[in-house]
Order: sequence, then C-alpha cells, then structure tokens
Amino acid sequence: MFQIASYETFQDGQIIFQEGTHGDWIYLIEEGSVEISKKMRGRRVVIEILPRGEIFGEMAFISKMPRTATATAIGETTVGIIDRDYYDHEFNKMPDDFRQVFNTVAARLKKATDAVIAAATGEE
Amino acid sequence: MFQIASYETFQDGQIIFQEGTHGDWIYLIEEGSVEISKKMRGRRVVIEILPRGEIFGEMAFISKMPRTATATAIGETTVGIIDRDYYDHEFNKMPDDFRQVFNTVAARLKKATDAVIAAATGEE
Repeated sequence: MFQIASYETFQDGQIIFQEGTHGDWIYLIEEGSVEISKKMRGRRVVIEILPRGEIFGEMAFISKMPRTATATAIGETTVGIIDRDYYDHEFNKMPDDFRQVFNTVAARLKKATDAVIAAATGEE
Repeated sequence: MFQIASYETFQDGQIIFQEGTHGDWIYLIEEGSVEISKKMRGRRVVIEILPRGEIFGEMAFISKMPRTATATAIGETTVGIIDRDYYDHEFNKMPDDFRQVFNTVAARLKKATDAVIAAATGEE
C-alpha cells in the first residue's frame, strides 16, 4: 500500500498540475478520475483517463524533468499525495546504474507519448 | 557504471531476443547498435535504433512480462549482460509500492509503444 502524506480534492475540470511546470509529487487517485493531456501544435490531446487506484505524476519524479503532461480532475476527484521523503529516501538508496534503468524507461515513455501525440495531431 | 556479468557478440542481423519470448536480462550496448522492432498485423515496425552506451531489455525485467519487442544486432555488436543477481537483489529491496511505480511506467510505455506501432501500421 502507498504511504500517503496528505489528501487534496479537486473539482471537475480543475487542473492538478500543468505541463511544463515544476513539481515532482506522485499522486494516487482515491476518488474520481484524472485526465492526462498534452498540448501539441496548439491542440490539447488526451493521452489517458486514469481511474481510481491509478498513480500519476511519476514521470517527473523519476526523470526530474518538468511535468510532461497536464493532469485535470474529471468530476470531484480526491488524490492522495504520496509521501515524498519516503520515496526520495528509497530512490536515493538505489545504486546509480539501477536508477539509470528507470530514467531510461521514463525517457522512452516520454518519447513514445510524444510520437503518439504527433500522430494524433497529424504531424509526422 | 553498470556491473556486467558477461559479454556476447552478435553478427549483423542476428536476433538478440525475440518479441514474445521469456527472459529478462538487461543489456548494455558496448559496440555496434541494436534495432528494437515489433510485429503488428504481419508487419515489422522499427521502434528505435539504439547506439552504443544505451541499455535495452529493461521492460521485461521491470514488468516480468515476456519480451515486448525484438532486439536485432546492426553490424557486429557486442553487448554486456548486466548482472542479474545484483539487480534482483536491489529490486527486491525496494518497497512494494515503490516497485509498483516502476511497473506503472513500464505498462504505460508498453501501451504508448503499441499505439505508435498501431499508427505506423495504419490501424486505429
């Protein structure tokens, strides 16, 4: 089970975090759902609708990049914010090369997602 | 730096591992390059060409799924096989929920890659 530091409730359509901003908390959806979207060529493309029980925000945590997508509440949505101290501690305990494996996966996910978005917006 | 258990050399066009098979070693490209491809609707689609210094095979390690893609040597290619005992040990030391974060990323990468492939093969 996830160690939750605090809870936050968002109204329908409210932005939880915005693409390009800084922040690397990881969230767990307790109630409601969350839309993950990206902007490309002026269009907002929905990547995924995540249901209760799913986590999101993990990309920025792993890669230390700015948020790669926007998270928006669908309906009244409560998220648990996963305890960062605990995660930082665990992540920092991992050997460098092991962390690099996860960075690689995160970088590839970002690239694949961008390719999906590019295809969706008609860009080659 | 990565702890390498052994090295293996493949000739141009030789398959390092095949999509759908079992095995979860992680490889580091020491010399040459590796083509990552997937089959969809009878077509083989190249996802990526990885150069020297890149790792591959990490998806099966993280997710414990069969190989999600085929890895083929481009030119004479030497790969280092990363010490599994060491990785298993590190991965097993991670708390369950932390491991779940990485499983989530791996699952999303698989999904995004499949979407890219589907777009490339003209499937909706």
